Amino acid sequence: MPSPSDLVAQDFETLYHNHLLPYGDAEVSEEFLKQITELMSAHIIKSNNRDEKVLNFVYPEKLEKFFKDYKITEKPLSLQKIIDDCKMIMELSVKTAHPRCFNQLFSGLDWVSLAGECITAACNTSMYTYEMAPAFNCLEKLTIDKMASLCGWTEPCDGLFNPGGSISNLYSVQAAMNYYFPNVKQEGCYGMPKMIAFTSKHCHYSMQRAVVILGLGTNSLRQVPVDERGRMIPEELEKLVLACKEKNEVPFFVNCTSGTTVVGAYDPIEEVNKICKKYNMWLHIDAAWGGGALLSKKHKHLLKGIEEADSVTWNPHKMMGVINQCSAFLCKKKDILAKCNKMNASYLFQQDKLYDVSYDSGDKTLQCGRHVDVLKCWLMWRSKGDIGFENHINHLFSLADLLYKEVKARDNFEAVFDNPQCTNVCFWYIPKSLQHLDRTSTEFKEKIHKIAPKIKAEMMLKGSMMMSYQPLDTKPNFFRMVFNNYGTRNEDVLFLLDEIERLGKDL
Amino acid sequence: MPSPSDLVAQDFETLYHNHLLPYGDAEVSEEFLKQITELMSAHIIKSNNRDEKVLNFVYPEKLEKFFKDYKITEKPLSLQKIIDDCKMIMELSVKTAHPRCFNQLFSGLDWVSLAGECITAACNTSMYTYEMAPAFNCLEKLTIDKMASLCGWTEPCDGLFNPGGSISNLYSVQAAMNYYFPNVKQEGCYGMPKMIAFTSKHCHYSMQRAVVILGLGTNSLRQVPVDERGRMIPEELEKLVLACKEKNEVPFFVNCTSGTTVVGAYDPIEEVNKICKKYNMWLHIDAAWGGGALLSKKHKHLLKGIEEADSVTWNPHKMMGVINQCSAFLCKKKDILAKCNKMNASYLFQQDKLYDVSYDSGDKTLQCGRHVDVLKCWLMWRSKGDIGFENHINHLFSLADLLYKEVKARDNFEAVFDNPQCTNVCFWYIPKSLQHLDRTSTEFKEKIHKIAPKIKAEMMLKGSMMMSYQPLDTKPNFFRMVFNNYGTRNEDVLFLLDEIERLGKDL
Repeated sequence: MPSPSDLVAQDFETLYHNHLLPYGDAEVSEEFLKQITELMSAHIIKSNNRDEKVLNFVYPEKLEKFFKDYKITEKPLSLQKIIDDCKMIMELSVKTAHPRCFNQLFSGLDWVSLAGECITAACNTSMYTYEMAPAFNCLEKLTIDKMASLCGWTEPCDGLFNPGGSISNLYSVQAAMNYYFPNVKQEGCYGMPKMIAFTSKHCHYSMQRAVVILGLGTNSLRQVPVDERGRMIPEELEKLVLACKEKNEVPFFVNCTSGTTVVGAYDPIEEVNKICKKYNMWLHIDAAWGGGALLSKKHKHLLKGIEEADSVTWNPHKMMGVINQCSAFLCKKKDILAKCNKMNASYLFQQDKLYDVSYDSGDKTLQCGRHVDVLKCWLMWRSKGDIGFENHINHLFSLADLLYKEVKARDNFEAVFDNPQCTNVCFWYIPKSLQHLDRTSTEFKEKIHKIAPKIKAEMMLKGSMMMSYQPLDTKPNFFRMVFNNYGTRNEDVLFLLDEIERLGKDL
Repeated sequence: MPSPSDLVAQDFETLYHNHLLPYGDAEVSEEFLKQITELMSAHIIKSNNRDEKVLNFVYPEKLEKFFKDYKITEKPLSLQKIIDDCKMIMELSVKTAHPRCFNQLFSGLDWVSLAGECITAACNTSMYTYEMAPAFNCLEKLTIDKMASLCGWTEPCDGLFNPGGSISNLYSVQAAMNYYFPNVKQEGCYGMPKMIAFTSKHCHYSMQRAVVILGLGTNSLRQVPVDERGRMIPEELEKLVLACKEKNEVPFFVNCTSGTTVVGAYDPIEEVNKICKKYNMWLHIDAAWGGGALLSKKHKHLLKGIEEADSVTWNPHKMMGVINQCSAFLCKKKDILAKCNKMNASYLFQQDKLYDVSYDSGDKTLQCGRHVDVLKCWLMWRSKGDIGFENHINHLFSLADLLYKEVKARDNFEAVFDNPQCTNVCFWYIPKSLQHLDRTSTEFKEKIHKIAPKIKAEMMLKGSMMMSYQPLDTKPNFFRMVFNNYGTRNEDVLFLLDEIERLGKDL
C-alpha cells in the first residue's frame, strides 16, 4: 500500500476495488474520490463554456456497438479503468448544464445543489423512518412547509418529495379517490361508482397515466377544452361536470395546470376552484413546471387561488434548477396519504420504538425505500436565499420576454401564441421557400411540419444547441423554447434565433 | 474574485452563491466541490471505524426544535455556512457505512458506486429519451441483459431501473393485468372480472400496496400459507386458486419471494411455476433482497426456476451494496410495459426524430423524468468483476452461518427458525430473568415481546450498533439480523451478540 505522499503520483492502473475501504486504504479511497471530483468539475466547467458543443451525437446503433467493448467482465478492472469509464461516459453525455441546452423543462447545474446530492450519496440512506434519516425527515418537513407557505397555505400540511412530478400527480388522484371513497383501498374500483377526473386538454400526460395506473382507466379522465392561450375554460369544465352527473357518474377531481408543458399556460385557479367547491371535487394544482413563479412577487399572481387547492405538485428540479430528481407533493389534508397507503409493516414501522413514530414518513408513500431528495433543494435555497430565487425566476421570465419580442420582430419567425404566460415561447421558423404560401393552406402546413424536425436534427448533429419541437392540436410542428437555466443570458436568446436561421436558411 | 493560488486559504465566509458558476468563477466552484468531497471522504472513513458510534440519536421533538435555527432566509448565506450545514447534517445522520449498521436490507458504502452516483449528478439528466441520456440508456440495456442472463433468461428482455423494489413489484402486477386484460388501460377495473393475485403470507408489504394502488384493492390479494421456514406452500396455493375459480374469480398473478424481508425465505419457484402454467397465471419473482445469491455459484440454487418467470424484481442496492436507490425490474415479454403505459406525448416522444425512437425508454414507465440509476451499478460491477461479487455474496452468507452457529451455541439465545436460507438470522435474546419460564406460556410471550424493543432503544441511545426487531405471525418480538454490508467481519458478528448480552443483562 502506498504512503499518502505517493498518492498524487499514484498509478491507479495497479489499484483495484479491494484497495478501497472497507478492506483497503483510507488514503487511496480519498484520492480516488478526489479524481472523480476533478472529472465532475471539469465536465461542468466545460459545459459552461459557450464554445463547447452541447452534445456529441452518436446514433444509437453505433453507440450500442461501441459499448460491446465495455462489458462487465469476470475479473475486476483497475481503478484507472473505472476513472476512464467515467470520463468516457461524460464525453458521451449531453451537457445539460450548457447555457444553450434548451431541450427540457430542466437544465443548468447548480453547484450547491450538486453538493447536496453528493452528501446525500455519502449518507446513503432511505427516508422511510426517522431512525434511519432523522435530519432528512426534519428537513423535508421544513421545506414542504416553506413551499406550502408560498402557496398561501396557513396551516402545516402533509407532503413528500417524490421521484418526479408524474408520481406526485398520481398521489393527488389517489388521495382524492380515497378521500371520497374510503372503501377503494379494500375493494378496489370494483363496484364503485364511476369516478371522473377532469383536466385540461393541454395538461401533462401524467394525468392520463395516473388514471390508468390507479385502475380508473382513460375513460375516467375528461379533457376540458382550452382557450386561445391554452388555459382551461371554466365554463366548459362545468358543462362536462353536469354531463357526467346526468349519466350518474361521479365527478371527484379537477387538475389545474400551472404552466402547461408545451405553451406554459396557467389555468384560472380561482374560477375552477368555485366549480370544485360547488360540486364537491378535489382541486389539484399541477405546478410541476410553473410553480417556480411563486418565488417572484412579480409573477406569483399567475397562481392566484392556489391557496384554495387540496394538493399541489411542484418540481424544484424544473424552474428552480435543483439537481434531478426533486418533486414536491403538498397535501392539505394531513391524514389522507396514510389512509391510502398505510400497510403497518411490522418489521419497519414498529409501534413500540423509543421515539414518536409519527415521524416515520414511509407508511404513507407508494414506495418503501425512498431516496433523499430534500437536501439538494434545501441547501440550494439556503445558499441563494428567497431573494436569490426571486432574481433567478425574474431572470428566466425576462429571457422569455426578450425571445418573444425578437420572434415578433423578425420576419421569418411567427409566434404560435401571443403574450406567453410562462417562460415557454412557441414559434415557427418560416424559411424563405415557404414565405409566399398561404398560412392556412394544406401545402404550407405539410411543409412547415417538416421544418422543425429537420432543424432539430441539424442542431443535434452540429451540437450547437438543443431545443424541443412538437405539433399541438391542429398546429403543425413548431419550436418550443423554455427558459429554466439560470446561466442562460440575453446573448443566448439571440444566438438561438440566429442559429435556427443559419441551420434552416436553405430549407 | 481571488486568484486560484489564494484558494487553498480561501475564506468561504465572504463567498456566496453568485461566486460560483455560471456567474462566478470556475476555480471557486472547483474548490467548493473539493471541500464537499473532503467532507464526504471524512464521513465515510469515520463510518468505517469500529470505535465510532453508528449514530448520535436525538429525539425528533428536540431535533425539530434544533432545526428552527436552520430556516431558509430571505438573504443568501455564505458558502462557508453551506459547508457547515453539510457537516452538521452528516453528524446527525446514521453512519450507514458502519460495519455494525445492521438495521435494514442495505448498508455499507461502496466508493466506486459512490463515484457513479456523483458522476450521475454532474451529468444531471433524465432517462426518458435517448437524446437526453444516450450512454445511460445503452448501459441500462447492457446491465438489464446481464442480470437477465444471471436469471438464466436466454432471450433479450425488457426492463427498467426504478426508484425502489416497491415500484418494481407494482410494474409486475400492472404488466400481468394488462397482459390478460388489455382493456383495463381504457376501462380501468370497472366491469372487469375479479382479478386475483397470490403471494405468500411473508411477502414484502409492497405486494399489498401494489394491488391497492392499481385499483384492485386488498380484497384481490390472497396470502398463501408458509411452511416452518417461511416458504410458500405450493399445495396451499393451488387450493386457493381452485377456491377462486369456484367463485368465478380470475387468478392471474403469483408472486414468489426470493429472500423474504424478515426470515429470508426462498419460495419454491419450480413448484409454483408448475401451478402458474397449469392455471395460466403470470409468475413474478420478488428477488429484491435475495437476488444477490444469483451471483454465487454456491448459492444460486436458491432461485432455481427463476428462468421460467415472467418478471423479476432485483435490487442491487440491497445485497450487492450499490448506492441507494437501485432496483431493476426485468420483464420477459418485450412489449407489455409500453402497452401498459404508453401515452405518446408528442412533445417528448416525437416519432420524426433523427434516430430510431425505439431507444426512448420513457413511454413505458410509470414516471416521466426518471433518475439515472444504472451508472452506480454498472461501474461497481465493472470494478469488482463477477468474481468480486461472488466473493462478496459468499462472504455475507458465511457471516450468517457464523451467527446462526453462535446463536445455537449460546444458552441465552434462541433461533426463531432453523437453518436460515438467506443471510437473515432471526433470534431471541432470553435474559436470565426469563430463562426459567415455560416458553409456551403467556407470561413468557408477553415478557420476551418487550425485550427486543428495550435493547434496541439502548443500542440506539448508546450508538453502538443498529439492528431490527419485529413480531411475526404469533411469534413475539425477536431480533432480525441481516448481513448486507461487505465490510462486516466475523469480529462484528461476535460483537453483536456480546453487545446484546451487555445491553440486556439486567432485563
